[in-house]
Amino acid sequence: MPEAGRPTPPADLLEQVRRALAEDVGTGDVTAALVPADTIANATVITREAAIVCGQPWFDAVFTQLSAAVRVHWLEEEGARVDSSVSLCRVTGPARAILTGERTALNFLQTLSATATAARRYVEAVAGTSCRILDTRKTIPGLRSAQKYATRVGGASNHRMGLYDAVLIKENHIAAAGSIAGAIARARATTNVRVEIEVENAAELRAALAARPDVIMLDEFSLEDMRAAVALTRAATTDVKLEASGGVSLESVRAIAATGVDYISIGSITKHVRAIDLSMRFDPGN
Amino acid sequence: MPEAGRPTPPADLLEQVRRALAEDVGTGDVTAALVPADTIANATVITREAAIVCGQPWFDAVFTQLSAAVRVHWLEEEGARVDSSVSLCRVTGPARAILTGERTALNFLQTLSATATAARRYVEAVAGTSCRILDTRKTIPGLRSAQKYATRVGGASNHRMGLYDAVLIKENHIAAAGSIAGAIARARATTNVRVEIEVENAAELRAALAARPDVIMLDEFSLEDMRAAVALTRAATTDVKLEASGGVSLESVRAIAATGVDYISIGSITKHVRAIDLSMRFDPGN
Amino acid sequence: MPEAGRPTPPADLLEQVRRALAEDVGTGDVTAALVPADTIANATVITREAAIVCGQPWFDAVFTQLSAAVRVHWLEEEGARVDSSVSLCRVTGPARAILTGERTALNFLQTLSATATAARRYVEAVAGTSCRILDTRKTIPGLRSAQKYATRVGGASNHRMGLYDAVLIKENHIAAAGSIAGAIARARATTNVRVEIEVENAAELRAALAARPDVIMLDEFSLEDMRAAVALTRAATTDVKLEASGGVSLESVRAIAATGVDYISIGSITKHVRAIDLSMRFDPGN
Amino acid sequence: MPEAGRPTPPADLLEQVRRALAEDVGTGDVTAALVPADTIANATVITREAAIVCGQPWFDAVFTQLSAAVRVHWLEEEGARVDSSVSLCRVTGPARAILTGERTALNFLQTLSATATAARRYVEAVAGTSCRILDTRKTIPGLRSAQKYATRVGGASNHRMGLYDAVLIKENHIAAAGSIAGAIARARATTNVRVEIEVENAAELRAALAARPDVIMLDEFSLEDMRAAVALTRAATTDVKLEASGGVSLESVRAIAATGVDYISIGSITKHVRAIDLSMRFDPGN
Amino acid sequence: MPEAGRPTPPADLLEQVRRALAEDVGTGDVTAALVPADTIANATVITREAAIVCGQPWFDAVFTQLSAAVRVHWLEEEGARVDSSVSLCRVTGPARAILTGERTALNFLQTLSATATAARRYVEAVAGTSCRILDTRKTIPGLRSAQKYATRVGGASNHRMGLYDAVLIKENHIAAAGSIAGAIARARATTNVRVEIEVENAAELRAALAARPDVIMLDEFSLEDMRAAVALTRAATTDVKLEASGGVSLESVRAIAATGVDYISIGSITKHVRAIDLSMRFDPGN
Amino acid sequence: MPEAGRPTPPADLLEQVRRALAEDVGTGDVTAALVPADTIANATVITREAAIVCGQPWFDAVFTQLSAAVRVHWLEEEGARVDSSVSLCRVTGPARAILTGERTALNFLQTLSATATAARRYVEAVAGTSCRILDTRKTIPGLRSAQKYATRVGGASNHRMGLYDAVLIKENHIAAAGSIAGAIARARATTNVRVEIEVENAAELRAALAARPDVIMLDEFSLEDMRAAVALTRAATTDVKLEASGGVSLESVRAIAATGVDYISIGSITKHVRAIDLSMRFDPGN
Repeated sequence: MPEAGRPTPPADLLEQVRRALAEDVGTGDVTAALVPADTIANATVITREAAIVCGQPWFDAVFTQLSAAVRVHWLEEEGARVDSSVSLCRVTGPARAILTGERTALNFLQTLSATATAARRYVEAVAGTSCRILDTRKTIPGLRSAQKYATRVGGASNHRMGLYDAVLIKENHIAAAGSIAGAIARARATTNVRVEIEVENAAELRAALAARPDVIMLDEFSLEDMRAAVALTRAATTDVKLEASGGVSLESVRAIAATGVDYISIGSITKHVRAIDLSMRFDPGN
Repeated sequence: MPEAGRPTPPADLLEQVRRALAEDVGTGDVTAALVPADTIANATVITREAAIVCGQPWFDAVFTQLSAAVRVHWLEEEGARVDSSVSLCRVTGPARAILTGERTALNFLQTLSATATAARRYVEAVAGTSCRILDTRKTIPGLRSAQKYATRVGGASNHRMGLYDAVLIKENHIAAAGSIAGAIARARATTNVRVEIEVENAAELRAALAARPDVIMLDEFSLEDMRAAVALTRAATTDVKLEASGGVSLESVRAIAATGVDYISIGSITKHVRAIDLSMRFDPGN
Repeated sequence: MPEAGRPTPPADLLEQVRRALAEDVGTGDVTAALVPADTIANATVITREAAIVCGQPWFDAVFTQLSAAVRVHWLEEEGARVDSSVSLCRVTGPARAILTGERTALNFLQTLSATATAARRYVEAVAGTSCRILDTRKTIPGLRSAQKYATRVGGASNHRMGLYDAVLIKENHIAAAGSIAGAIARARATTNVRVEIEVENAAELRAALAARPDVIMLDEFSLEDMRAAVALTRAATTDVKLEASGGVSLESVRAIAATGVDYISIGSITKHVRAIDLSMRFDPGN
Repeated sequence: MPEAGRPTPPADLLEQVRRALAEDVGTGDVTAALVPADTIANATVITREAAIVCGQPWFDAVFTQLSAAVRVHWLEEEGARVDSSVSLCRVTGPARAILTGERTALNFLQTLSATATAARRYVEAVAGTSCRILDTRKTIPGLRSAQKYATRVGGASNHRMGLYDAVLIKENHIAAAGSIAGAIARARATTNVRVEIEVENAAELRAALAARPDVIMLDEFSLEDMRAAVALTRAATTDVKLEASGGVSLESVRAIAATGVDYISIGSITKHVRAIDLSMRFDPGN
Repeated sequence: MPEAGRPTPPADLLEQVRRALAEDVGTGDVTAALVPADTIANATVITREAAIVCGQPWFDAVFTQLSAAVRVHWLEEEGARVDSSVSLCRVTGPARAILTGERTALNFLQTLSATATAARRYVEAVAGTSCRILDTRKTIPGLRSAQKYATRVGGASNHRMGLYDAVLIKENHIAAAGSIAGAIARARATTNVRVEIEVENAAELRAALAARPDVIMLDEFSLEDMRAAVALTRAATTDVKLEASGGVSLESVRAIAATGVDYISIGSITKHVRAIDLSMRFDPGN
Repeated sequence: MPEAGRPTPPADLLEQVRRALAEDVGTGDVTAALVPADTIANATVITREAAIVCGQPWFDAVFTQLSAAVRVHWLEEEGARVDSSVSLCRVTGPARAILTGERTALNFLQTLSATATAARRYVEAVAGTSCRILDTRKTIPGLRSAQKYATRVGGASNHRMGLYDAVLIKENHIAAAGSIAGAIARARATTNVRVEIEVENAAELRAALAARPDVIMLDEFSLEDMRAAVALTRAATTDVKLEASGGVSLESVRAIAATGVDYISIGSITKHVRAIDLSMRFDPGN
């Protein structure tokens, strides 16, 4: 994670935790009831594979909602790169609350660390270029804000958050407006947000450049076509940014960045989840 | 999906859709506003890879919540196995509503089809044995009920839904109760739900069998140890079921099933998501 | 309440308290405003009739939500049997918060103690037999999880929590499946939860026994027919449990238990509420 | 129910139904899944004891939320007095939706009919006098508005809805204000709602009358003391109303009304619930 | 604000704050992330115009929800009259939390102080008369309870809170009942709440007086007609109150009060908002 | 409203309507109960002053939530300029539902039309210049998205929606980063959203221009200083936009626009509400 400071969590964090606890605890934890109410436990969360750590505010909130008496002490910072077998944090408090919250807390941590780790891989693959990695709106329903936070923790940047904070003009909108120029002009006339347009070939790119959107998305361009697009855009001496999109993989991303495009947006960072393997180990004698 | 009938969706389906739309639409879809309010569109959802189709009730609800005028006509049934390039459904109605709902509807379909597809792979890997594939509580926070539905659509069975509908006794609970027999007796005395206990070796298995839980989970047993466990359990002539758990892969699952265990529980079905690649294509002239 | 430990409360406890406070406080407590904001009060909750105490986590949460400065000190444990005129707890803190929360806190305590007390009566009526008392899904809308907790506190066991955690096959499902055997086979094929079937006579019982559900519900059987059912079931040497249901009263329950059935389910424990009479008395000079 | 028109239901009706369905359906109705999705069923709700019918808007909303295809046709009006074995309504539509909603719909109907029936008994016991029966704030948590509606359907009137719509001055508030007159003056100075004060003897009654609240509550007065209170109040030629409260039973209520008090408030109407026995019978051949 | 004590806030205060923070913070405060997480700040809220201070419980709750480490110390009491350039409170704690909450906290304070200030102006305009200023149901959607609290803080009284706590009979209801007397009788027969009726001329007033509602609203009467109405009502020697309504301004309100009406209800107090100008200034060196 | 199409409403529209109805209807409309349930009414909403019409989707949703049988037919389009005494729409359906929804529906319409009207006044004051009018985050708590929609309907543009969709660097952030350049660089490094910085004098403006944010906010600059800022910015030949902010009035706004700044942001559009005077008139004979 860049030095400039840890990203701030979304407003719906507590609500996400409340829902996750509700779906797991339901009518009551029938197993935790076997443990005496006054038993105290100590436990450690340990990685079973390398990862970028992400999701600490959610993990903390799970236990805060269950009991004011549980303490979580983090040994690794949010956004830190860790190896396998690393102790991430110590959890101390009433055994019942820790047992009840264990799975929900780990589910957040393993899911969001997965997203941060995926983002970081792409960020590192383009390290040294001026190209930025962006996420997309292809997210897990209900976790948009958490996943967008995780891609920031991973060092990538957020594309638009939703349909509300940027215009992204596609084929249908161009058809409705009659032309690329018309669509962009209409967007400029009715909103003040960033305006982006998707183009599929050089002719559309030229029409788009003339209408000066903020960003032009090159949809499934070949590397050669991307290089030509970059040259054309620089010649136009505008501030228009170019975004490569479509079919990007860890193998191809560096070559794409090398074409000079400003952004590469990658759906797989958020639409796929490869949960990080974590375990919570209780100290013996608990 | 077995013939006995399509699984029924969870009670929080509409709430999950409401949240997903809220996080995407936010303060309003600034791009859809470019399309005249009276434009009608027709579109088709097409697969870009083979999959088990899952998530139709969520997909439908996205459009129902946006507009009473959108119609979705499914060409493939929930739970159907489809190839790449197959048309899943036709969507017809106001262009604005379809454009606004497109991504949210696809996000549900690609995520839940991913889970159903993963479940089906394991189910087919053990086809012909009497072993059942189970999911776990390692799920995406906020999507527990939807993912559990998807594993049913995939042909697997649900392990417990949460902490409330079955007892699962682990090390800590045994320590609190003093013994395996004590923990099971305490569970029987205080609840009426299914009681399962996790054992790590043959000695614990024997102690557990004597206490007659409903299910015994064999935690990371070798194939050889599993076979011995099955023999021991059959000799005990009880109805106790055996569940294999830990480190199961598509490669190893059939051999595990062949040991005679009743269930194999697999976290990766729900904790990982490999979204199915889908696209919505609009008819020209929309 | 059995020694094995106090039942754990449901996940929606705080939400139930929030709603109850909202419906009582509404746009603001116009009477509490008459008391100076810095007045401190001490009060005691006293029983006016014998009861099983239940609802302490809800009672506590009412005051926690109103003010961090209110302290509740319990003199009797959750699940304790108390006589009339017993002091249950002391409440200390800002008079306004105590006056505002008084009725809502007592409403939870009197309602849940009612359910626990009703459950305990049936449990004691069958004491010494191996028969277990079960609740049903006939509950007060919105209080399912709280009432199910109260029946556990009362020493009874929970039947299924809802439509999601057990199959209960009735006439309509048998008709749909063509036969008792078909219905049970279909349930086994599509779920992994407990399967119960309702039978109305000996012929149905025999068909059900052959299909080996987990539980068979004997619907309004006479005592004689129940005894025959028990004999038949034992002869079948399976683990199938028998549940008596329908028209059970405190007067008839022991005779039913004596037939040897495993469970007796009783709707009146949760569908009726005979609130326990409680009062909160403020110390003079408050 | 008086002719003047059926009471209007509360604003949170749909939310109460949503919660009740959520707690019953949870992760999905595993039994309804056994019935083919296209089966149509017809059913009738039948009384098993005499009752005042109440809760139709909730019953209807349960099925509306489950399926647009279910139709409910009422044969008896809300508020009607019915005997045992009377058909209340016909329910027609998809069998799955009817089976899934059956218990939740009946739970509302049996609970609210219980409250309306209890209220009607007291109303009839004082028929012919000018005394009005009032409910109290002793209600089932989460069902305040529904129970208050049911007491209206039963023919009784609502006392205050909560802490927000009337001042009710008790001992603590008098102590804080220094005197009865001071407490009432303070209430008048800060609010515009109805002001009621509780008195425990004749001296307090006289002090209260002089301060002219809207209502004076006579707390556990003897019949003789009530008659004296009525005489004193009439002599004062004000519009102050008298409310009898405390320890009222069906046996004693008429004698209390005969003393001339304007209102009798009765906690047992809403704090106790004696659910009305109802059943839903499916037409054969469904 | 009268001495009798600060009004108590509504039950939905925390929910209003939660929503306001959600709409402002959304997916995370991207600017606060620029400040190191351990920076501490001190700030002061200063008035830029004279006002009645109102909204402190909401202001406090904004910061409580963001961080347990923020402290707010008020220098002026709720309901106090302050000039321009007055320091209202000091806010101390983590700079990030204060920056994130600043605008939401000020939005509550500037909006509710606006309402309290408007109410106070009318209250002072009628000072010395026995006439009370009332608010109406013309409020900002979603802020009813907060605005009603603010009018109390301003020294005015609340008219009915909503459609539920008083009957207000207008033209349509009279037509439905056949006559003024019929409408009032019907209201008395079915409810126990305050009954008010709107009249448009002296004939209607006389009919209303004969039927003895609690309050009669004089709709857009001239001053002369109001005086006549007051005389008529006093002659009737009942407790019926008169409320003037319609087209009241700060200029006309005192003359209206001088007619002897009991209440004047004024929509502009809550339907208009002239936000009080406030700023939060951070101490240098933060 | 510009021709390009009516703005799209926010995702929380239905939730805002649900809350507004809940706060008005509460435990039930006690007056509507006086009207027979089968009475049909027709009514017209009429303006009592000139306005820009705004809020139709909210008005419609109020009645949709109350009854499927109410129809609203609009005679004027959303965003239309109307005079006093103009009929805006016809409402037809069950009289009870129309009476119950009347005030809530009008409250939305009068509040949002107020905001749209205020926005339109500023837009017209700068007509013919290239300057755009922006709103701010000074909004009514809970109505952010609705007010932002209304400013769009009024023809103005939205500044950032909240803390999440643009960086706005102020004094504190510059201090934390050490310099203007440092703060902007840090924002660019960690986010991909629009970056704006507030400057208070020419020296800060030059430093900001060198660091190339997207927008520079000129905080309370004189007209002369604004003109100099515009000249300086044009000379820098960048795409940086200038925004004037602070103390803008209808009188001063055109002169400010004439300086050549790109945007003028105006808090009073949303922080003040001067509700449009509207009434609903029922057809006689209803």
